[in-house]
Amino acid sequence: MSYNLLKGKRGIIFGALDENSIAWKTAELAHAEGATFVLTNAPIAMRMGTINELAEKTGSQIIPADATSLEDLENLISQSVEILGGKLDFVLHSIGMSVNVRKGKAYTNQNYDWTQKGWDVSAVSFHKVMQTLYKQDAMSEWGSILALTYMAAQRTFPDYNDMADNKAYLESIARSFGYFFGKDKKVRVNTISQSPTPTTAGQGVKGFDGFISYAEKMSPLGNATAQECAEYSITLFSDYTKKVTMQNLFHDGGFSNTGVSQEVIEKF
Amino acid sequence: MSYNLLKGKRGIIFGALDENSIAWKTAELAHAEGATFVLTNAPIAMRMGTINELAEKTGSQIIPADATSLEDLENLISQSVEILGGKLDFVLHSIGMSVNVRKGKAYTNQNYDWTQKGWDVSAVSFHKVMQTLYKQDAMSEWGSILALTYMAAQRTFPDYNDMADNKAYLESIARSFGYFFGKDKKVRVNTISQSPTPTTAGQGVKGFDGFISYAEKMSPLGNATAQECAEYSITLFSDYTKKVTMQNLFHDGGFSNTGVSQEVIEKF
Amino acid sequence: MSYNLLKGKRGIIFGALDENSIAWKTAELAHAEGATFVLTNAPIAMRMGTINELAEKTGSQIIPADATSLEDLENLISQSVEILGGKLDFVLHSIGMSVNVRKGKAYTNQNYDWTQKGWDVSAVSFHKVMQTLYKQDAMSEWGSILALTYMAAQRTFPDYNDMADNKAYLESIARSFGYFFGKDKKVRVNTISQSPTPTTAGQGVKGFDGFISYAEKMSPLGNATAQECAEYSITLFSDYTKKVTMQNLFHDGGFSNTGVSQEVIEKF
Amino acid sequence: MSYNLLKGKRGIIFGALDENSIAWKTAELAHAEGATFVLTNAPIAMRMGTINELAEKTGSQIIPADATSLEDLENLISQSVEILGGKLDFVLHSIGMSVNVRKGKAYTNQNYDWTQKGWDVSAVSFHKVMQTLYKQDAMSEWGSILALTYMAAQRTFPDYNDMADNKAYLESIARSFGYFFGKDKKVRVNTISQSPTPTTAGQGVKGFDGFISYAEKMSPLGNATAQECAEYSITLFSDYTKKVTMQNLFHDGGFSNTGVSQEVIEKF
Repeated sequence: MSYNLLKGKRGIIFGALDENSIAWKTAELAHAEGATFVLTNAPIAMRMGTINELAEKTGSQIIPADATSLEDLENLISQSVEILGGKLDFVLHSIGMSVNVRKGKAYTNQNYDWTQKGWDVSAVSFHKVMQTLYKQDAMSEWGSILALTYMAAQRTFPDYNDMADNKAYLESIARSFGYFFGKDKKVRVNTISQSPTPTTAGQGVKGFDGFISYAEKMSPLGNATAQECAEYSITLFSDYTKKVTMQNLFHDGGFSNTGVSQEVIEKF
Repeated sequence: MSYNLLKGKRGIIFGALDENSIAWKTAELAHAEGATFVLTNAPIAMRMGTINELAEKTGSQIIPADATSLEDLENLISQSVEILGGKLDFVLHSIGMSVNVRKGKAYTNQNYDWTQKGWDVSAVSFHKVMQTLYKQDAMSEWGSILALTYMAAQRTFPDYNDMADNKAYLESIARSFGYFFGKDKKVRVNTISQSPTPTTAGQGVKGFDGFISYAEKMSPLGNATAQECAEYSITLFSDYTKKVTMQNLFHDGGFSNTGVSQEVIEKF
Repeated sequence: MSYNLLKGKRGIIFGALDENSIAWKTAELAHAEGATFVLTNAPIAMRMGTINELAEKTGSQIIPADATSLEDLENLISQSVEILGGKLDFVLHSIGMSVNVRKGKAYTNQNYDWTQKGWDVSAVSFHKVMQTLYKQDAMSEWGSILALTYMAAQRTFPDYNDMADNKAYLESIARSFGYFFGKDKKVRVNTISQSPTPTTAGQGVKGFDGFISYAEKMSPLGNATAQECAEYSITLFSDYTKKVTMQNLFHDGGFSNTGVSQEVIEKF
Repeated sequence: MSYNLLKGKRGIIFGALDENSIAWKTAELAHAEGATFVLTNAPIAMRMGTINELAEKTGSQIIPADATSLEDLENLISQSVEILGGKLDFVLHSIGMSVNVRKGKAYTNQNYDWTQKGWDVSAVSFHKVMQTLYKQDAMSEWGSILALTYMAAQRTFPDYNDMADNKAYLESIARSFGYFFGKDKKVRVNTISQSPTPTTAGQGVKGFDGFISYAEKMSPLGNATAQECAEYSITLFSDYTKKVTMQNLFHDGGFSNTGVSQEVIEKF
């Protein structure tokens, strides 16, 4: 199934690690919908994943970039515009990592160097990407910039740790930069707040399986999958959502607005 | 431009009065995107408008219905399923009216019979439509129900009067019924919170021109037009947004998340 | 314990049925804090409850009033001002009832006459109270009007039924009327969104015990009690919260911003 | 006027620079309400301000601390418990600073070293304070921790720059840490989102006077003053708000829920 929704559109997709990644699914679908794009990931993530396979499938080039490095981003963006033959219509930011989570540090016992590292990778990287796009004037009018986030930015999920605060900062960047990108360049900036998704990254979080199951039972339509997130992302890159900006869009089968479900309450 | 996004989908569209209506634009675009549908409006609205022209353009039948009448709705929905040859994939509710506004009654001086009438027409009608769809089991799995609303449900705009409260009730219905429609029928229910739009209905509100101009200056991408709202609605009827439910989606060029814009602050 | 926080203040308290009522606790504490007030309830509620005992304890007069009747409200308010010897400083609206809930009608199978009755009693009554206060110019400058609500206005709790929509409407009234009462009379209007509370009314809701237990486990500080709600209400009537207005204030031990708690997730 | 609301309570107040500071007003009022506390500020802020005068007035000791330094915070907190003779009942965090703002860097042209510095001072410091309190088990049961924030965390105000993102992170910390402080120690954590206030710090922001005037005209009750913020803070430190936690509380005369006011719309 495809509709040519992105026919002729050019983009950059950050964060496709392997076939479980939302960014991977988005790249596959963007390709099917007629887009051309550059794939990028951190050098270390590229070694762990299988991005070459995706590049081949979608006829894309890969440009490694550490999203916390302005130099890498400048190179990535200028190269992308050159390779793709014009300004960019869409950018997907799907990057997140907490050292405190990885190393099992409780939220009440943070190592602040790690806190800073996670903040830089997960949140500030989004600002750096946009600032570089803005300075290079690399986005087309009515282009669309999108980042993935999670509802922990609004409500506490104890195991989500400092990623909650990072996501809150990320969503704030979407609003703040969305204002200037809108006014100055007619570009929209949004975040999708996605159901917990069993990506390779997501699975690293403690108690993730129980949480997936809880979210499934709380969501009237069930959890949104990575594939469904890709589909939703495509609509937000398309010309049919031009005036949606500075929004955090829940894509979660209704979890966010369900106080409790019948299945959950029955356990009490 | 069209993508066949709604190919083979069947629907009902409420509230197309004339060519300025959002429902009108949505009908035109749904037709271009491959959908078939029934048009409906209140008998009195049909006499004032030009819906016949739209029906002709889109090859649609018209079934008049007072959306506050269960009998009319039952007839409308069973007829629609029969005419269209199957269950419904999408429904658009674009209905709203305040007698207090029309008759110039201040919010602090309501006539409560009029308050009730406006509530019934603008908000309860949405519940009645869904309850009838639900009882007749008239929606296909993964169908999409959508109503139009306005941000006055969250923040006060003094001239919006009791429509603010009606819209808050309408948005609550979308969440409440969305829970049951999701769990029981795999159907999603959402509202679009649209920029002020110079429809024939909107223009009846006192001070509307000044307000449109204010909203334009506050919105980083400018106000969303009726045509753009139609485009956004199509994405929400498409198969690419299946897990978006119980949401109120701002479609307003960024107004809702702009505290103040440069243009507005310069007046102070 | 008392602080004279309401010394010399005059008010009206709606909805004290019996000693489990939040309004009852608020009346007791308001009395201890130095306020004088009139108690009121619907004639039928007065026969079922024990309000006379409260009146005696607090040295208050009782004026029966159906809060959906403008005539009753006009009488109540003008009498209260006379009895208390001056304009009012605070009003508590603690009224709610759904006929659909009482009679066991599912949300997807409403009797709309009952829907309207519940809406009128639970939500419009708040507008009627304020409109009457406004027209009689019965509030002192920097007075405080407060209504009780529940988080079902934001998220769906399946058994809460049409009370969810009523509470959404009620909260919208607080904002809408709060604008005008603020501008024109320097009076603030807020709602408290309270934990589920085992009042005599609350206990009528299906599955209420399981729900109380769920909420207790989800709330980092546990559910807020009726007594604690009275205490919070007193702060909102005091002179220390003069610029808080048009707000919906969660008083729930943290439930509203907890995505999931450790105790709840452990069941999955 | 005073009520003994904080009789016998012990606390720490961060951020009293001079008599325009919200923290200064809060200290004065906390003293009048019967509390004892330690005052603290960064060494450099202490040299610029007049905190000694406040200490004298309120019979308080001053302990300088850089709120980004764990060592300083550990010393501050253990010393305070000793000086005050017991665990703490309340803490006020009123700290914020953006180097990008100070040096006139646009939001679209950040110096990321400065971004990090501002984030550390304005947001992470709140986590560090709480982590130190938590580790030292320095808070009494039912204690109250409070930070000051601004609505730019929800909506963009172009001149507020990266402070918007810092405040979003700060508010997220309040929720995240509030969960653990609630569960583990029965301590509440909240933020007050205050009107723009002509403090010495606030006045440094570009276009601040115009903005104050705009906010005044948008707020049905007018802007909340520093004194009023002190009063509101006292209620949140008192025993009458024990179950309010993980909340962001708007204290702004209604600004946050006003879409537009009559005075503002008249300019369009």
